[in-house]
Amino acid sequence: MKELSEQIQGLCRRAKEASRLLSELSTEKINQALIAIGEELQTRKTVILSANDRDIDSAKIMGLSEAIIDRLFLGEKRFTALLKSLEDIVLLPCPIGETIEQWKRPNGILIKKVRVPIGVIGIIYESRPNVTVDSAALCLKSGNVAILRGGTEAFNTNKELVTAIREGLRKTNIAEDAVILIPTTDRQSIPILCAQRDFIDLLIPRGGKGLIETVMNNAKVPVIKHYQGICHVYIHSEASFEKALDIVLNAKCQRPAVCNAMETLLVDEKIASDFLPLIVSELQNRGVEIRGDEKCLHIMGDRISTATEEDWSTEYLDLILSIKIVSNLDEAINHIHQYGSNHSDAIVTEDPAAAEAFLHKIDSAAVYWNASTRFTDGFEFGFGAEIGISTDKIHARGPMGLKELTSYKYLIYGNGQVRN
Amino acid sequence: MKELSEQIQGLCRRAKEASRLLSELSTEKINQALIAIGEELQTRKTVILSANDRDIDSAKIMGLSEAIIDRLFLGEKRFTALLKSLEDIVLLPCPIGETIEQWKRPNGILIKKVRVPIGVIGIIYESRPNVTVDSAALCLKSGNVAILRGGTEAFNTNKELVTAIREGLRKTNIAEDAVILIPTTDRQSIPILCAQRDFIDLLIPRGGKGLIETVMNNAKVPVIKHYQGICHVYIHSEASFEKALDIVLNAKCQRPAVCNAMETLLVDEKIASDFLPLIVSELQNRGVEIRGDEKCLHIMGDRISTATEEDWSTEYLDLILSIKIVSNLDEAINHIHQYGSNHSDAIVTEDPAAAEAFLHKIDSAAVYWNASTRFTDGFEFGFGAEIGISTDKIHARGPMGLKELTSYKYLIYGNGQVRN
Repeated sequence: MKELSEQIQGLCRRAKEASRLLSELSTEKINQALIAIGEELQTRKTVILSANDRDIDSAKIMGLSEAIIDRLFLGEKRFTALLKSLEDIVLLPCPIGETIEQWKRPNGILIKKVRVPIGVIGIIYESRPNVTVDSAALCLKSGNVAILRGGTEAFNTNKELVTAIREGLRKTNIAEDAVILIPTTDRQSIPILCAQRDFIDLLIPRGGKGLIETVMNNAKVPVIKHYQGICHVYIHSEASFEKALDIVLNAKCQRPAVCNAMETLLVDEKIASDFLPLIVSELQNRGVEIRGDEKCLHIMGDRISTATEEDWSTEYLDLILSIKIVSNLDEAINHIHQYGSNHSDAIVTEDPAAAEAFLHKIDSAAVYWNASTRFTDGFEFGFGAEIGISTDKIHARGPMGLKELTSYKYLIYGNGQVRN
Repeated sequence: MKELSEQIQGLCRRAKEASRLLSELSTEKINQALIAIGEELQTRKTVILSANDRDIDSAKIMGLSEAIIDRLFLGEKRFTALLKSLEDIVLLPCPIGETIEQWKRPNGILIKKVRVPIGVIGIIYESRPNVTVDSAALCLKSGNVAILRGGTEAFNTNKELVTAIREGLRKTNIAEDAVILIPTTDRQSIPILCAQRDFIDLLIPRGGKGLIETVMNNAKVPVIKHYQGICHVYIHSEASFEKALDIVLNAKCQRPAVCNAMETLLVDEKIASDFLPLIVSELQNRGVEIRGDEKCLHIMGDRISTATEEDWSTEYLDLILSIKIVSNLDEAINHIHQYGSNHSDAIVTEDPAAAEAFLHKIDSAAVYWNASTRFTDGFEFGFGAEIGISTDKIHARGPMGLKELTSYKYLIYGNGQVRN
């Protein structure tokens, strides 16, 4: 334990040193590094994919779920996508150095607020190996050092990926410690990492309840959580059924395993007896299991099962949907307030006043009027990339792109001014 | 302990409930409340000032320092200033609801990024009673609930101030729990407050090392520290001596007890034998104790005392100054990197290239070229108010005004759009 602690602290110290060098590099140099990393990954593809095979084999032996094994799997197609995403990041404008605002004060000093890197960012995540490359590339592009603590099940894959990344940095004469993988699967490494106040400027945990709790309970540095999405769609009494059907089916079925998928449908009771049979048929045709409240059961009978109290706060990440009939807009808002996770929620209505009240009162990162919750995404928002979706309210909320990975400082230009 | 814990948790729960109500109020209503609070404070002036007298008496009996007693003292003049500052906050534009950015995506959805309150902000501070009123008013104006945990020594004063504030809220029909004072001087209340993850969205500790450490070690919610300023002024070889003298004297002597005052002067060795005797005379004429490194001693002899290693990382907050002679710009930058606190640092030079290198490489909230570090202040920056000066890099850096007390959310306007 003491040894592990010292090992991790040593790595974090090196990361902090690298961060000072990194903050002084030009955009051209960073882009050169990203291109070199792409080439290294390409060169080492066979080694990386066979490391991934080993991880998959271990996962099967350990009896991990099909879903986890699927997320863990890299393969040719995903490898190509990973390289493509790296190329896209090269093309994005560099946020660093941008003057966000500038103004002159009556005493003549000029104040410039300019964008700077945050410093050292620790990313703690699970399963998907593409997160390793994406996180490293986004951190580099925004002038930040990345300390990566990936999932145990992807350890071999991540090790080979980071070897390639560091080789790309080395070949561009950039400090390799700009990207560091915590080289252990020991779970104790997470609390140790979370305590490195002197060396880490920000922690981003991406994952399930267990991981997030561990980070929250141990963090001595700022944290931006990428946590669960218990997303709602509320079908108001003045909804267009056509839009409602499209949006509900998209929000639930298009990709149920992601955080911006809908978990609970709220239906206004004025239209419930008309709308519910339509949407339930369509959902069931797509294999969705429906769990309704008492009012739903009253309309749908034994075609659906019963929702328990627990259902309202469950992120299924699966083809399961809870449905509640609400008597009006206020009840819908109160339900979301009580059970939601402040991620993404939508109203479907043709009534602008109801829509504006919903948009104003729902305290979520993204609030939708007549659109699917599935748009809460850095690419769909036009950010060109994303490191994930913040469910916190401090620093960055919702999709986090390059800008959200930056801080700022004030540069003050004077001519000898002093304060009276 | 259990009782205290339950009491504080109960207060925080009420704060969270009030925050939902507060976020729905109009600017007019909030301004009415601020005006009513001013009237209540005026009405209760005698009660408040006599509570302050009791605090001062206790402080004297406890043998607290003159500096603490001075900060604790309210009195007629400061009371008037406090009311004036409240009036100023009424006049400031409300940041809530502002559309920060908006854009349309190719699929037709309109994305608006709008400013919203953070929610519940816990402010943990020491001594000065005006912080109680300022913090409450700034939180209210930005739609946030304030939970205040003031210093033990100001407990009676704070209790009366918050009674007036809550009475002002009550008379405007706003939930009184929009401003809550933790009604105990028990030090255990701080760690308990820091752990209220379900109810507090942000903690702002303002104070010395002990307070900041307690908060950092116990926080389970986001923290923005208002910590120390070990501020440097570097006199470059190409400095104008006239500007250098003005800036050094201002940064050190104008108000030595604040975080943006200079603590260490760095002098380029090329000009040291000319500049040092000048500035040391001026500083000593103003009662400043000088502690120099070996090279300084070589020039100044026994006119100054010796700086120890500890001096370079000490925030004196007093008429004491450490001086180091550096061989060039890089050594100055490295010294600030090693010993600074990322608060405010200045270069004095007529050489634009040296200035730009300094501005670029120094990683502090405010970096100055030919101006005094004393300008790091919400009022001097033109924010109209400040809750303090963040020494962190996440969310807000440097002076925090009303905007820095906000978060944002995305409102997405569609017409039935779904994701492919």
